[in-house]
Amino acid sequence: MDMEEYLRERRRLVDDALERHLPRDDTYPEEIHKAVRYSVFSGGKRLRPILTLAATEAVGGDEQTAIPFACAIEIIHTYSLIHDDLPAMDDDDLRRGKPTSHKVFGEAIAILAGDALNTEAFNLIARETLEKGINPVLALEIITEITDAAGLKGMVTGQVLDLEKEDQPCRPEELEFIHRHKTASLITASVRVGARLGGAGPSELEALTNYGMAIGLAFQIVDDLLDVEGGKEWGKVRGRDKNLSKATYPALHGLEASRSKARELSEKACAAIDGFDHRADPLRSLAEYIVSRTY
Amino acid sequence: MDMEEYLRERRRLVDDALERHLPRDDTYPEEIHKAVRYSVFSGGKRLRPILTLAATEAVGGDEQTAIPFACAIEIIHTYSLIHDDLPAMDDDDLRRGKPTSHKVFGEAIAILAGDALNTEAFNLIARETLEKGINPVLALEIITEITDAAGLKGMVTGQVLDLEKEDQPCRPEELEFIHRHKTASLITASVRVGARLGGAGPSELEALTNYGMAIGLAFQIVDDLLDVEGGKEWGKVRGRDKNLSKATYPALHGLEASRSKARELSEKACAAIDGFDHRADPLRSLAEYIVSRTY
Repeated sequence: MDMEEYLRERRRLVDDALERHLPRDDTYPEEIHKAVRYSVFSGGKRLRPILTLAATEAVGGDEQTAIPFACAIEIIHTYSLIHDDLPAMDDDDLRRGKPTSHKVFGEAIAILAGDALNTEAFNLIARETLEKGINPVLALEIITEITDAAGLKGMVTGQVLDLEKEDQPCRPEELEFIHRHKTASLITASVRVGARLGGAGPSELEALTNYGMAIGLAFQIVDDLLDVEGGKEWGKVRGRDKNLSKATYPALHGLEASRSKARELSEKACAAIDGFDHRADPLRSLAEYIVSRTY
Repeated sequence: MDMEEYLRERRRLVDDALERHLPRDDTYPEEIHKAVRYSVFSGGKRLRPILTLAATEAVGGDEQTAIPFACAIEIIHTYSLIHDDLPAMDDDDLRRGKPTSHKVFGEAIAILAGDALNTEAFNLIARETLEKGINPVLALEIITEITDAAGLKGMVTGQVLDLEKEDQPCRPEELEFIHRHKTASLITASVRVGARLGGAGPSELEALTNYGMAIGLAFQIVDDLLDVEGGKEWGKVRGRDKNLSKATYPALHGLEASRSKARELSEKACAAIDGFDHRADPLRSLAEYIVSRTY
């Protein structure tokens, strides 16, 4: 399959849905609506929602049902980036080659834009489930999955430890714990949500969970590598992790070991879904894409 | 009825449920779990969840069903206070007589504690709905109500305008717009959610919506009054609004007009539920309590 074409087409699907679901940026008061859209439409890869759609496809589900949930996950991811970039957190000026939200709109609006996105994600899920007649019990189960992945059992705890470990020694198993929570839990949820909406059975769901965890960990290692050696497509200030004395995979294990670990995880992900037919090909290509990406 | 006793008993009900629903503060990593509990259990009045329970009671519903939703609303309220107190927002050092979250835990943890609470509120609703076998469609409808009240159509927009109007002239109708969004929308949702869970019919729901909006506006006017003339129970630094050049009801209309407006709204709230029987007595007392409170 032509991966570039596939990603472009999926991104358009996700972008069109986000466009429909988010209020226009001339809605009163304009500043906050502009801030919300600025971050949601800032050229993200849409990896998480594309994983949701690909997982649904892999088990023979209907993509249309998965789209609102895929968008909600991307919206939650976006809120986390806005807050993560704040001066009190990672204090980043650039994201995807553009000034971060608080640099453009100020800190107060950036905080509120993140808060609004976190809230609106659940509005979107609830509203679309009711409108499209999606199974309401399944939708509620998915809300527990997503909130477990994004909240205290997942992403927030990863963020806390990521900050705590600045300037502190970090053991390999602690670093993996951080990566699992900070990054891999929401990526795994993206895959699981698509699978569940597509009607995956228990063994399929288990395989896809293993797939998701492996690519989630690979994704974070590649992120850490790009911080060291990324080109201009990377779109962030290079060497930020080192300046912040962040615990990263390359800092702990070196560049070469990081590259092979990422590749190994990508292969592990593909092995987990070995028993799936050709409908899982996009997931296989995505596992490859995640370790070969340059931004 | 003995209002003090009623409030005490209801607060205990809400506190016990929150205690059960939130992870223990020795959960790893402890700092974030301590921060979450610090703000949730910092002596709040529990007005919003008590309104949810009282509204359910007023239409003959079962309080036990309403408790998780009441707790979720209190959790969302708590997240909004943590973020509102941040240096980039209102920059408050004290809340309910205690140091604010970022003064105790630092800004990064305060931001993440707010984020976690916002997320966990929806986890709580989804989980409890599934466990208790509550009508899942109703639960999803309630999620849309709460997120409309807390997100871009409600509280967040109120916060944005509240910040925008610092040092700026504010017309009376603009101030009411801010109060409706910043405060009254979540208070109205608290009442509506209880009513809907209790099985309110359309005319009951309409009456309770009018009740909620009136007490919500009254609540904010009293808040503004307490900022000027509150005693030590108030627990915040007095005169903050003036120092921040906030648009407030007393600043625009004077103390005397503010007091009568609050009282008028409280009476309007009671008039809205005039046709309800004795089971609405707690709501009537709460409307009185809101304008006579000293903290």
